[in-house]
Amino acid sequence: MSDNKNFTLAVVPGDGIGPEVTTEALKVLDAVAAQHGVTFERTEYDLGAKRWHATGETLPDAELEEIRKHDAILLGAVGDPTVPSGVLERGLLLKLRFTLDHYVNLRPSKIYPSVGSPLANPGEVDFVVVREGTEGPYVGNGGALRVGTPAEIATEVSVNTAYGVERVVRDAFARAQARPRKKLTLVHKNNVLVHAGHLWTRTVEKVKADFPEIAVDYLHVDAATIFLVTDPARFDVIVTDNLFGDIITDLAAAISGGIGLAASGNINPDRTAPSMFEPVHGSAPDIAGQQKADPTAAILSAALLLEHLGLPAAARAIEDAVTADIEERTGSVRTTAEIGDAIAKRAAG
Amino acid sequence: MSDNKNFTLAVVPGDGIGPEVTTEALKVLDAVAAQHGVTFERTEYDLGAKRWHATGETLPDAELEEIRKHDAILLGAVGDPTVPSGVLERGLLLKLRFTLDHYVNLRPSKIYPSVGSPLANPGEVDFVVVREGTEGPYVGNGGALRVGTPAEIATEVSVNTAYGVERVVRDAFARAQARPRKKLTLVHKNNVLVHAGHLWTRTVEKVKADFPEIAVDYLHVDAATIFLVTDPARFDVIVTDNLFGDIITDLAAAISGGIGLAASGNINPDRTAPSMFEPVHGSAPDIAGQQKADPTAAILSAALLLEHLGLPAAARAIEDAVTADIEERTGSVRTTAEIGDAIAKRAAG
Ligand SMILES: CC(C)[C@H](C(=O)O)[C@@H](O)C(=O)O
Ligand SMILES: CC(C)[C@H](C(=O)O)[C@@H](O)C(=O)O
Repeated sequence: MSDNKNFTLAVVPGDGIGPEVTTEALKVLDAVAAQHGVTFERTEYDLGAKRWHATGETLPDAELEEIRKHDAILLGAVGDPTVPSGVLERGLLLKLRFTLDHYVNLRPSKIYPSVGSPLANPGEVDFVVVREGTEGPYVGNGGALRVGTPAEIATEVSVNTAYGVERVVRDAFARAQARPRKKLTLVHKNNVLVHAGHLWTRTVEKVKADFPEIAVDYLHVDAATIFLVTDPARFDVIVTDNLFGDIITDLAAAISGGIGLAASGNINPDRTAPSMFEPVHGSAPDIAGQQKADPTAAILSAALLLEHLGLPAAARAIEDAVTADIEERTGSVRTTAEIGDAIAKRAAG
Repeated sequence: MSDNKNFTLAVVPGDGIGPEVTTEALKVLDAVAAQHGVTFERTEYDLGAKRWHATGETLPDAELEEIRKHDAILLGAVGDPTVPSGVLERGLLLKLRFTLDHYVNLRPSKIYPSVGSPLANPGEVDFVVVREGTEGPYVGNGGALRVGTPAEIATEVSVNTAYGVERVVRDAFARAQARPRKKLTLVHKNNVLVHAGHLWTRTVEKVKADFPEIAVDYLHVDAATIFLVTDPARFDVIVTDNLFGDIITDLAAAISGGIGLAASGNINPDRTAPSMFEPVHGSAPDIAGQQKADPTAAILSAALLLEHLGLPAAARAIEDAVTADIEERTGSVRTTAEIGDAIAKRAAG
């Protein structure tokens, strides 16, 4: 572990545009590290489609144990059309999130004044989604019988525990408490998924007693998507399950400047294992290797990483550099590396 | 059953704004029925919150069997804040959809030129979502253990069968075949929900062989929400599971003129039981009984009902009346009844 000056970083560039955007995030990280008197000793892990094709491995346990020894993980993107859907997602990305107990998947959304939104009148958008990261329909407790026959049946089980729900709900309340608007919205579908939904609803009711200043409301996930396009400014902190969080954070990214700007942290708040930072976007195989990807989401994910490691000034330096860069974007096309260079220069300056 | 001139209709006004919007839908239905030489003999079923409070019943089997004898069902909205969440939804609405085998939940989305969209540049939106209605996470195969204790565990099981998936996928392909653009998009999350997702994906691949003219693509549900706000014009027919369909059709309604215009049909294509028509919106208890609700979605649902009963000219009369009414909307506030009156007058004219 680190001495609070010299940090170790496990880097998983992954698939598609993952390596390109990761290169830029590391460039910017190095630029601010120098300014803030810290170092990052990096180990790169060759995981993803190429590795799977070569060896059939997604994430061997021994390698996972290696990764676990680091202070934090930076990940690019996972998923490739040449690999059956789910193999890398479940075997690599979700294996990391679940094994390292990343129960808070943190996804901030903010509209930068100068960045266009597909919404005509988005208003002042500045909210954060606290997506549960270790339960729900993502647990992989599904199965199939008589596959490929007319009698096939396939199930997916959403698993939700009081233990798992309460810890993420407490984290979300604490985040709401630290923000000026002090508002928390639970998003679920408790009128249909009554067992899971009522556990979530009761847990929010219970934890609320410890946070009397927080205004709490509830939205069904379908209604939440409506408000995300008609009145996104109403949101402050949203807490929701793994699958609903997946869906609404892509929508949140889309309405606030696009998926090229959306950062995320897979956080283990108890620090029993390293947290992992990655852009919300996927591997975008159609533009991979062409220097067309916007590395901003990966760069902002590095800022979340710095914040998590207790380096808020360095995090702020990246965020300010990104804001300044975004404000001057003219619409002229820059390569992935050019955007990274510009932000690194500002962040170091 | 009917003689194709005199139809029987079971009417379930339901909760909240349900009764108000249903009154207007029936008004318009009567107006066009007279013009097209058909009659609707209506039986109203007093189901919903009031009934539950009075008797504890949601939908007794005997009443369900009565309802089953009709040619079609018109439903307003279900759900009430004075009833525990899920009781009416599962016990009434979903009981109808499941027992009457409404496996095609049809939800068209169209942008009327004169209606504002929250999107700055929506483009020409005209697509239909074919939402599976009898399987997926909606089956109610969940449960909970040690409820209310720190050791609580709550599960929800998504059940998907080759039988259930193939029939709705075939219906969606047939609908795509009947439309000019001939495009079908499967929306799922097959990189995480691999068992259910691969069943859906394989089924679409298989049925595609019978529809060589249809261009097929696939989107993860999270990516689909992005395209619904950045490029909704790309969609023609979307086929998806029960829960994803719930979420994306509310979003689809929001981007195309709002939830006040979104109609739906819960269709049993095999006609082994009556189909049911209802607005996509909920019971909106906050504005119930105030004549503030827009009945257009309920009225357009009546048009889908006419279409299903083999009365396309009558359906078109309603749709044209709605289009004309929408085009002249000035922003001045009308009551629910005033909107119904205006559309009924046009539809009869
Ligand atoms: C790649 C995929 C497994 C992942 C998810 O569903 O969580 C992604 O969509 C995300 O949101 O990080
Ligand atoms: C009321 C609720 C059970 C219902 C659903 O989830 O299907 C509604 O949201 C809908 O879309 O018709």
